[in-house]
Amino acid sequence: MHIGMIGLGRMGGNMYKRLTEAGIKVTGYDRDPNVSDVASVKELVDALPGPRIVWIMVPSGDITRNTVEELGNLLSPGDLVIEGGNSRFSDDFLHAKALAEKGIEYVDCGVSGGVWGLKNGYGLMVGGDAKNIERAMPIFDALRPEGPREEGFVHVGEIGAGHYAKMVHNGIEYGLMQAYAEGYELLAAKDIVKDVTGSFKAWTRGTVVRSWLLDLLVKGLEEDPGFSQITGYVNDSGEGRWTIEECIANAVPAPVMTAALYSRFTSRQDDSPAMKAVAALRNQFGGHATTAKAAADAGPSSGSGSTQS
Amino acid sequence: MHIGMIGLGRMGGNMYKRLTEAGIKVTGYDRDPNVSDVASVKELVDALPGPRIVWIMVPSGDITRNTVEELGNLLSPGDLVIEGGNSRFSDDFLHAKALAEKGIEYVDCGVSGGVWGLKNGYGLMVGGDAKNIERAMPIFDALRPEGPREEGFVHVGEIGAGHYAKMVHNGIEYGLMQAYAEGYELLAAKDIVKDVTGSFKAWTRGTVVRSWLLDLLVKGLEEDPGFSQITGYVNDSGEGRWTIEECIANAVPAPVMTAALYSRFTSRQDDSPAMKAVAALRNQFGGHATTAKAAADAGPSSGSGSTQS
Amino acid sequence: MHIGMIGLGRMGGNMYKRLTEAGIKVTGYDRDPNVSDVASVKELVDALPGPRIVWIMVPSGDITRNTVEELGNLLSPGDLVIEGGNSRFSDDFLHAKALAEKGIEYVDCGVSGGVWGLKNGYGLMVGGDAKNIERAMPIFDALRPEGPREEGFVHVGEIGAGHYAKMVHNGIEYGLMQAYAEGYELLAAKDIVKDVTGSFKAWTRGTVVRSWLLDLLVKGLEEDPGFSQITGYVNDSGEGRWTIEECIANAVPAPVMTAALYSRFTSRQDDSPAMKAVAALRNQFGGHATTAKAAADAGPSSGSGSTQS
Amino acid sequence: MHIGMIGLGRMGGNMYKRLTEAGIKVTGYDRDPNVSDVASVKELVDALPGPRIVWIMVPSGDITRNTVEELGNLLSPGDLVIEGGNSRFSDDFLHAKALAEKGIEYVDCGVSGGVWGLKNGYGLMVGGDAKNIERAMPIFDALRPEGPREEGFVHVGEIGAGHYAKMVHNGIEYGLMQAYAEGYELLAAKDIVKDVTGSFKAWTRGTVVRSWLLDLLVKGLEEDPGFSQITGYVNDSGEGRWTIEECIANAVPAPVMTAALYSRFTSRQDDSPAMKAVAALRNQFGGHATTAKAAADAGPSSGSGSTQS
Repeated sequence: MHIGMIGLGRMGGNMYKRLTEAGIKVTGYDRDPNVSDVASVKELVDALPGPRIVWIMVPSGDITRNTVEELGNLLSPGDLVIEGGNSRFSDDFLHAKALAEKGIEYVDCGVSGGVWGLKNGYGLMVGGDAKNIERAMPIFDALRPEGPREEGFVHVGEIGAGHYAKMVHNGIEYGLMQAYAEGYELLAAKDIVKDVTGSFKAWTRGTVVRSWLLDLLVKGLEEDPGFSQITGYVNDSGEGRWTIEECIANAVPAPVMTAALYSRFTSRQDDSPAMKAVAALRNQFGGHATTAKAAADAGPSSGSGSTQS
Repeated sequence: MHIGMIGLGRMGGNMYKRLTEAGIKVTGYDRDPNVSDVASVKELVDALPGPRIVWIMVPSGDITRNTVEELGNLLSPGDLVIEGGNSRFSDDFLHAKALAEKGIEYVDCGVSGGVWGLKNGYGLMVGGDAKNIERAMPIFDALRPEGPREEGFVHVGEIGAGHYAKMVHNGIEYGLMQAYAEGYELLAAKDIVKDVTGSFKAWTRGTVVRSWLLDLLVKGLEEDPGFSQITGYVNDSGEGRWTIEECIANAVPAPVMTAALYSRFTSRQDDSPAMKAVAALRNQFGGHATTAKAAADAGPSSGSGSTQS
Repeated sequence: MHIGMIGLGRMGGNMYKRLTEAGIKVTGYDRDPNVSDVASVKELVDALPGPRIVWIMVPSGDITRNTVEELGNLLSPGDLVIEGGNSRFSDDFLHAKALAEKGIEYVDCGVSGGVWGLKNGYGLMVGGDAKNIERAMPIFDALRPEGPREEGFVHVGEIGAGHYAKMVHNGIEYGLMQAYAEGYELLAAKDIVKDVTGSFKAWTRGTVVRSWLLDLLVKGLEEDPGFSQITGYVNDSGEGRWTIEECIANAVPAPVMTAALYSRFTSRQDDSPAMKAVAALRNQFGGHATTAKAAADAGPSSGSGSTQS
Repeated sequence: MHIGMIGLGRMGGNMYKRLTEAGIKVTGYDRDPNVSDVASVKELVDALPGPRIVWIMVPSGDITRNTVEELGNLLSPGDLVIEGGNSRFSDDFLHAKALAEKGIEYVDCGVSGGVWGLKNGYGLMVGGDAKNIERAMPIFDALRPEGPREEGFVHVGEIGAGHYAKMVHNGIEYGLMQAYAEGYELLAAKDIVKDVTGSFKAWTRGTVVRSWLLDLLVKGLEEDPGFSQITGYVNDSGEGRWTIEECIANAVPAPVMTAALYSRFTSRQDDSPAMKAVAALRNQFGGHATTAKAAADAGPSSGSGSTQS
């Protein structure tokens, strides 16, 4: 098998390697000529045997949309595009429709595994027609972890369903991370607890909360106890937001996943406009002084002489 | 009527004035000799005609507990203690029991109204025996707002119920304030919105969200548009915490009141241990850089080359 | 002044009356011929003096979109459309653009006040050009509550800003209602509290939580103590969802407004798929029986013989 | 080594077996004579060689407290009590103090692992003096999972710290379960998703969200696709509540763990008093009908003719 891969960054580059090691020939294109096999998408298309398979692994949004459009102009009927980036599932509907008008097939693929995927394999969630997925199965088998196929690969459903499952996967991931993080903060705050890192490490076998994320948290704590070198500033990549948008659209209550997203928003604020408003209100009704930001004190203020709060 | 009042701070001092203006004679005691009528609690007790009524208006916790104990040693059977501070309702059980052993009556009274109470009157919530409440009714009538008694006064229930209702009142208050505050932040963040203060002001008549807190928020915004002189650092006085403790004890889901409390906790943190843990996790699995705190950017990061979040 | 009004339902019908009582002549159109002055939108347009002003007050979504389109085909350059329904602000961008291509002016207007607006006046939030808003000011003055204009009317900003402010208003409203509701549930759950209705009533004067919504809650409790005739099933009208979508899009943490929305979602579920999953998990790891739904018990289960939860 | 174990239920019985299989002699006592080696706690104490070690594994609360008291009256100075049940950490302070007055040593031990612990070993978190923990190490080594000691055992800190870590472990567990559950509900609600079980199964290798809980969820889904045999009614065992109490006491914001707890509270309510109040409010201001509970509809209601929500 000989396929094309567009995008050879942190994810695409590793997948290229894993495919190659599995015996699949890959022609790769990247905007960075230092890592690219060919000079253009056109050259990549020309280098592939027909019917072609091209895997897209570029940043979601405009870059992916432009890449799909470019491929639409270069590929032939019967060729297959696999979109493996972090796209919103709704983009898949547009991509598939645009390509279908030219007879080009489309499969969307959500990919999980991060920088560890090269070694461990990637969790794959795909959407589209069974015949296209069957055709690309050698690729999926090369990328997914060893073991039973169904433990690292799934045909989720229609076009878009692969990215949808990946989106939900990430929404869950937000919640899992926040749960461990809140537990960490509480454990670290308690005076009778002397070994926080050891507590997390002791949970890695036998307990109900054992997981790969827990293993990573222990690794992080062992490298930097107390996270003294880290700032509590956390970005979000879009999929967490889409998950909540979908929860709202489908009337699915999702307090945990939402709280995890909001905690990230808050972590990036130097000062909170909302809490300024609350401070202003307390000042108005209770004569409470508005306070300069200082180290948090655990105890509630008391004895203020006011009965308000 | 001639009663005693212990505690002449921001709240007690104003209540002293309002009672006096209503024709009730008050002998006041405060640790600050400049505002005190008498030199000691003993002098205060001696100055009152029996059967005595003494209103306690000191900071909750140890100071209130000590004051109740001291009064227990000085008062006579048939005297009545009204505890009007911000005590936890569970303290009332102890206070009433200790005083009852000496034949002293007890009523707990939750007071709302803040610095505006002197002028507008105070909302009063009392707990205890009907006969004691009846006996103290001239005091309650003097303190409560003008208008029908039931619109500013309530006999909530048994001992402790007054403070309980006040506690719930404050829990609700936390939620109301946070709701306005979140709306403020969103409105202030949107580019097509040019008049945030005006929007809040336009809600003060005719709309569903009109309230006294809204009036105060408008006042605050007019005094300091954009809250440029205020830091988003918000204390909590204890009653918010007790409300959530009670929600947990009674299996009452209270996501709004709890979120309001947690937002205050977060507002006091310079850096969040929990979010350090999340940042560390993202770094471990996705190779995401841990970032120095900077001005929050509204957009999700994209094009990271990683499919993780 | 003589204007047209399309949509004479619960809101439009009352606004028609209030305008007429204020001396503004209104020609009204409704699909229901029993309440309509004219037989068609065309007749309405023909009946108005130029340059015309037409107020749209129909359900948001397709009906509003179709009405705007129809008006675009019937009105003349220089005419003014005021869209007063519950539209998403993003629809205003489309409406204004489509009408502008024909030289027709557009103002969006968020309206608050519910069934009480006829008597009390409506809170009005408008977006668009100052010249159009000035032109329609007699209408706004007739609809808004008596008193200073700025306490019931605001020119929020650009096209869409009126509906945006109304959307945020409703998001806040969700949060306020939920705060009172949680407090109600806690108060009603506590044995020492004997007078729940009385407690809420006593808060209506003098307290920090006094508001119009509180007045309504007291009215509801007095009509039906314990809400024995009401089911805890709560719809949502869309604006709450849009508010959260905007919070997510603008990275504004909004735990309170979101919790209020999710509580409505949950209130409509006969059984929760998520909680089925949790029950299944507990069964898997702890051997906990999965239980038939029964009356909630306040106390945590104990003595299960398992250390899991 | 020969120790005593009090409580031979689901947890204690399995631990008895695992200890015995590891070569530790155990004399067991249970209220159920069918599983008990001896007829009373006194017989158990008499059967043990001194200095004795007795492991308590009975339901937390009064039963544990009574057992500790009984042992205090039967044991001798230098004997060691290990309390391995699900007690609140604050009980350990009392237990240790009461026993110390009689010269009896005390160690608290949080145990995780559920019904799987017999086979996989138990995660152990202990609090107390190092010398006591050293003395009991053969027991801990027999109970913990195979592998490095620190991956299944930790000396967390002072008396109470073992149960504290276990409590936090369970708080995290609540959050993890709820995160998976919310993702499940969303995935199951989406029409383009055809294989929900398969999606979860595909996450069990290679993905970021892989965990033991995920494995169990897949097992549950395979046994009962769609959880058709399960009701979404979820108890809580106390440790989740204690975790939130501690978050409040230490000013640690914990929206995720709290949301998980509240979701359990809600799951047990046939009808929500809070949502009755919201429904009543909407009826009051908007004339919205209060609705009989029916199947949830995903879409927001629209076109109500009211602009309120």
